[in-house]
Amino acid sequence: MARIFGHIYGQPVGSTYENRRALRNAGVHAPLRAGISGTGNDGADSIVVSGGYVDDKDYGDTIVYTGHGGRDSDTGRQVRDQELSDPGNAGLVRAGLEGLHVRVVRGRNPDSPYAPSSGLRYDGLFRVESYGAKVGIDGFRIWQFTLVKIPDEAPTTATPPPLQSTIDTDTNGPGPASVTETVIQRIVRSSKVVQQVKAWYCHECQVCGLAIEVAGGLYSEGAHIQALGSPHHGPDVVENVLCLCPNDHVRFDNGAIYLSNDLKVIDARTDQITGALTVNRSHRIDPQYVANHRARWTTGTGRE
Amino acid sequence: MARIFGHIYGQPVGSTYENRRALRNAGVHAPLRAGISGTGNDGADSIVVSGGYVDDKDYGDTIVYTGHGGRDSDTGRQVRDQELSDPGNAGLVRAGLEGLHVRVVRGRNPDSPYAPSSGLRYDGLFRVESYGAKVGIDGFRIWQFTLVKIPDEAPTTATPPPLQSTIDTDTNGPGPASVTETVIQRIVRSSKVVQQVKAWYCHECQVCGLAIEVAGGLYSEGAHIQALGSPHHGPDVVENVLCLCPNDHVRFDNGAIYLSNDLKVIDARTDQITGALTVNRSHRIDPQYVANHRARWTTGTGRE
Repeated sequence: MARIFGHIYGQPVGSTYENRRALRNAGVHAPLRAGISGTGNDGADSIVVSGGYVDDKDYGDTIVYTGHGGRDSDTGRQVRDQELSDPGNAGLVRAGLEGLHVRVVRGRNPDSPYAPSSGLRYDGLFRVESYGAKVGIDGFRIWQFTLVKIPDEAPTTATPPPLQSTIDTDTNGPGPASVTETVIQRIVRSSKVVQQVKAWYCHECQVCGLAIEVAGGLYSEGAHIQALGSPHHGPDVVENVLCLCPNDHVRFDNGAIYLSNDLKVIDARTDQITGALTVNRSHRIDPQYVANHRARWTTGTGRE
Repeated sequence: MARIFGHIYGQPVGSTYENRRALRNAGVHAPLRAGISGTGNDGADSIVVSGGYVDDKDYGDTIVYTGHGGRDSDTGRQVRDQELSDPGNAGLVRAGLEGLHVRVVRGRNPDSPYAPSSGLRYDGLFRVESYGAKVGIDGFRIWQFTLVKIPDEAPTTATPPPLQSTIDTDTNGPGPASVTETVIQRIVRSSKVVQQVKAWYCHECQVCGLAIEVAGGLYSEGAHIQALGSPHHGPDVVENVLCLCPNDHVRFDNGAIYLSNDLKVIDARTDQITGALTVNRSHRIDPQYVANHRARWTTGTGRE
């Protein structure tokens, strides 16, 4: 059966289910045990937030969700590092990279004011805003995914299932695309601070030196070293901003490269130096933000 | 004086002005004659929509605004091609590339239901959603900028002018960045159609072959050949989507490269072939969309 990303027809937000079997039969979350439904190829289409992970945090419209793997099946505590290659975790990475809509189901959890008092409840669509590694309460690396609720009034209405069960690219037919069929994969933000940093470098990427030429001008992006927004809360100050080309911006924001304290560029797969960040003499980069970014992707194992 | 991007303190949306001198004195639009306030370096901070260009279109919340230059000063008709290097046009390009907020002032225009009946009126903030070239009514190349209104309730409230008149990156101080200080520079959208196209290429860019590796997966972007949204109205179908790396996506969307009918990649500055698009045998690309994109950036002068 094709994975459906979005609401399931006939299952409005707030629907409740007695158990995982009923949840599966309703088409809301297929696996009977796993908390994440998805693979690295497809992306994750749904998760169950059940309070089983000690590092999970539920703020209502923002959920910090611990990835899969590394737990002792008896005690539920972490006994090994988690891996992003685990299919569930890879599914949440893909959901984040593609901007997919992920159904969130909450299970009973006496510690959470947002959980149902019994059974399971479908609580609507979320997107994976960011992810990163940290050392969990039990001392092992966990991957955490920050999911943010998509407002219920957003154009994500469930449609009746198509007759074909595979992805069918013809159902829309040609003609102007409806906004309701697209999701946001990536948002690049700017600010006065970002513009100042870009001006110092004349739009040349601090990692690779490239300035993208387009009709009428040069193009670059401001990358916040310690990310903006929850749960990172990096500031929008020049000491926390790099001028990067879009490719290196994607690499930096998604943990393919990180910086050492002396501002060398490190390949995260190998922890090898691949170059040195170009730094204008007016541009002070604060090591605390560099360390924050590095900790997010290396949990302290990386080259400092 | 530093250019202010956003509302001017004390000048709410709907404020009216007797003439351009009063408009200038209020700080809403500095030039007394030019319709565009801005430069390629700074970006454009304001425009006056006065109905002087025969190719302009005002739909209220969407304005198709003709760039500066090439007009006969007596008749107001185009007598030469317009150039993106004209400072006003370059300012609107920069505003589009950076997602800047542009103040829009409407002048009297009996043909427009959105224009004031006399004088000038400040109508709020717009962003430059897209731009492109076309042959105007008078037979010469014009550059047109599609501006879309930013909702008045959006967090763009005017603040009292700072004591310093230059860009001051310290006024915020460190601490979590407020959303109100940032603007959206770029939004990348995805869809089921986009995911199908990416799958055909395993995220390898059809222009350069690169697949961006990030923690946990590969990253690519779906580029609509004929752009989505007003005024292009390209469809979200596989025949209109390319799988590109972010850098080539920016280049393609902003007219640095275009495609010939036989799907060669052409550098728009030189009209020289720089390579051939990689095309999967399952992926039919519709020449009509390729021609539409090419026309937007070359007005028919490019290599077909």
